[in-house]
Amino acid sequence: MNVLEETVERLGDAASRGDVAAVRSLLARSASLLNRPGTSGWTALMLAARNGHFTVAETLLSHGADRLAVNRSSQTAYDIAKFWGHTHISHLLVQTDDRPFLATSDPSQETYFSAEPLDRLSERRSDEAWQQDKQNRPDSVFLLFSKLSPLVRSLQPSTGPGAQTSLCRFSSSLVKELLLKPGSVLIFLGVERRRPSQTSSEPPAWFAINSTEDPEVLLQLGGEKDVFWARRPNRDLLNLSQDEAGIVAQARAVLAWHSRYTFCPTCGSSTRLEEAGYKRTCTNASCCSLLGVHNTSYPRVDPVVIMLVLHPDGEQCLLGRKKIFPTGMFSCLAGFIEPGECLESAVRREVEEESGVKVGSVRYVACQPWPVPSSLMMGCLAVALSTHIKVDENEIEEARWFPRQQVIDALFKGGSPALFLPPQQTIAHQLVKHWIGCTSNL
Amino acid sequence: MNVLEETVERLGDAASRGDVAAVRSLLARSASLLNRPGTSGWTALMLAARNGHFTVAETLLSHGADRLAVNRSSQTAYDIAKFWGHTHISHLLVQTDDRPFLATSDPSQETYFSAEPLDRLSERRSDEAWQQDKQNRPDSVFLLFSKLSPLVRSLQPSTGPGAQTSLCRFSSSLVKELLLKPGSVLIFLGVERRRPSQTSSEPPAWFAINSTEDPEVLLQLGGEKDVFWARRPNRDLLNLSQDEAGIVAQARAVLAWHSRYTFCPTCGSSTRLEEAGYKRTCTNASCCSLLGVHNTSYPRVDPVVIMLVLHPDGEQCLLGRKKIFPTGMFSCLAGFIEPGECLESAVRREVEEESGVKVGSVRYVACQPWPVPSSLMMGCLAVALSTHIKVDENEIEEARWFPRQQVIDALFKGGSPALFLPPQQTIAHQLVKHWIGCTSNL
Ligand SMILES: [Zn+2]
Ligand SMILES: [Zn+2]
Repeated sequence: MNVLEETVERLGDAASRGDVAAVRSLLARSASLLNRPGTSGWTALMLAARNGHFTVAETLLSHGADRLAVNRSSQTAYDIAKFWGHTHISHLLVQTDDRPFLATSDPSQETYFSAEPLDRLSERRSDEAWQQDKQNRPDSVFLLFSKLSPLVRSLQPSTGPGAQTSLCRFSSSLVKELLLKPGSVLIFLGVERRRPSQTSSEPPAWFAINSTEDPEVLLQLGGEKDVFWARRPNRDLLNLSQDEAGIVAQARAVLAWHSRYTFCPTCGSSTRLEEAGYKRTCTNASCCSLLGVHNTSYPRVDPVVIMLVLHPDGEQCLLGRKKIFPTGMFSCLAGFIEPGECLESAVRREVEEESGVKVGSVRYVACQPWPVPSSLMMGCLAVALSTHIKVDENEIEEARWFPRQQVIDALFKGGSPALFLPPQQTIAHQLVKHWIGCTSNL
Repeated sequence: MNVLEETVERLGDAASRGDVAAVRSLLARSASLLNRPGTSGWTALMLAARNGHFTVAETLLSHGADRLAVNRSSQTAYDIAKFWGHTHISHLLVQTDDRPFLATSDPSQETYFSAEPLDRLSERRSDEAWQQDKQNRPDSVFLLFSKLSPLVRSLQPSTGPGAQTSLCRFSSSLVKELLLKPGSVLIFLGVERRRPSQTSSEPPAWFAINSTEDPEVLLQLGGEKDVFWARRPNRDLLNLSQDEAGIVAQARAVLAWHSRYTFCPTCGSSTRLEEAGYKRTCTNASCCSLLGVHNTSYPRVDPVVIMLVLHPDGEQCLLGRKKIFPTGMFSCLAGFIEPGECLESAVRREVEEESGVKVGSVRYVACQPWPVPSSLMMGCLAVALSTHIKVDENEIEEARWFPRQQVIDALFKGGSPALFLPPQQTIAHQLVKHWIGCTSNL
């Protein structure tokens, strides 16, 4: 054992014992050894986390200890602190970052596009007098979409991390003329949910309008500076607050349905909008879609499976890339659920079709509405029964097993040329994060 | 304590100690006391189950002990045996029934309509030469539907419990003429999955045909006795084997889509069937549905939430009934997932809309394709935050909290005038059974 190695062992020993003075003195001499694992494969930070020495952990972090380093079992100091119940240290390891290190709560609470800040009040959709009254009220809120993309406003960067854009809110009087134009479609979204204290007046109603007018015309209605047309849905819609993303998910999906389902699929006649935008009825009195209830009259939601497939060794996951992805980006495999299929069968079929890998058990984790145009992404973890990969080149360009450490680096240290992940607003990102979180055990 | 009560206590005591001779002698004198609980609220069978006395349990069952009786904590003898790890006794309590007492495996493996005995081979759908070759092969199997209902055959009752009907299988030569008729639609279902040993020849391909011909004409094609037209979908389709139910789920859902989506919803023009029945393309060359990929061209699957809501006390569940239900039948609440909604939000919204009850946590359990016309029922357990019921009379006629014991009776003893449940082929039944199974703890 040379001098360097010996110093590493002494640092680890001091961290294990909780000897802050010794840790400080060793770091003063050779701070560069801070992240070097000892013969056990553990760093000083891991040893402090193992034995619950808070001040040592704090000292090591202040000197630049790497919280993402892993031992030979792929566990971080956070995993170790959490497993041994040293919550003050696991909180320390989470908090010192500018964003949470791991999803700490139910992932379904967090998926972007899934918030429901409005009460949809579906029983009011057929109440035409109520709808008309709400449309005329000065406190009602109207969102404007031009060709299915909303008008949004850039937020000042001074608002800090979080939402960078916000939906433009228009009043009844501003949209009155626009509503008379033939290409305009108006839908009701719901009313604001009120906390019990705010019972003095009725909560404001929200509506959305899709217009075929030139976006420039609508931008003039906006009046404000920094208003723009969010026309790249997969990018521009990802910078809203959680609540506004939830509202856009509902509005855009229903408006997209109106834009594509103008004619009756059963007989080809025109249809008319009813129930405040949640139904289209055939205008042909002899159409059989008018006999009984048929899905042709209601908005469509397409269920999709998206799954993180785990290697049988539990230490690697399968990610794939499509040709259209930016270089280096890999994501979870995904595909539409077919008629007559259950979630679990769809996961097994899609993974085998796209990658050749056979899947055994499947566990639902969380879902995400994806309003382009109207998918419901059902996110699952799945365990592989085989490991040989043979990609379907029509579907994906490449699929590979990635080791846990590389995935942790991509999640928390940002991308590398070899691997970066879709943004945190996607359920693919959340599934990967969930896997890293739930395999934190010792 | 009178003589009767004293005898009950002595029986319980003998069962607790495993004294088979004493149990037999007491039963010989007063078999009517067998199911009477002692002062502890436990029956003799529960006490034998608690202490692992197999022969006593067997003796009590042979004398007619009620395996469905519960103690004051709503636990059956099965629950008690399982909790204390006496698996030989819990197996005994399961096996002596003519059907399994509780779902023992993953509920998603069991839901009717969810089997996938065919490999869908989606990569072959666009291969017209391959499709044509398979359509002409003598070993290919064709199913016939008249107005979306299949031709089936009654099975001899001698085949015992299980499937009562079977799908009629036609050969290529029998359906050749029918396929030339203008109203006939042919779809490819897949090929039979082969076990590794059966590699000598290619596995048979399966197809389904929907015809607008009079069902009498098709019945003549069948030729056999006992062939009939299963025209009441919610009843006649529930008597197939698990494998055939899975095939019908796929076939009927895709055929129903063809029957209702003949015209392009975007422009109203006619469409043509492509990809062996999994796509319809607009025939109008200037239609914008031809630019890019749009869901208007693909079969529709409607995601539905169906949930068993549990009372905050854990001992009751919320069931509702629609006006159209037979008297006394109650089921889980259910409803379509709306655009922009995630599974969990849809559960909370539907339960509150239909019953007024507020729901907190939601857990996905299993799903079931329901091919009338093409729903995907996502089954969940949900925990109520409030208990006051106020039904939406447009949706349901009545909703009530039912105690666990009454639900157990309805599940395992069959219906009573006050409560019976939908048949075991429904996911509603399976969710209720799953709840009873997972709350078996002591
Ligand atoms: Zn029509
Ligand atoms: Zn068209």
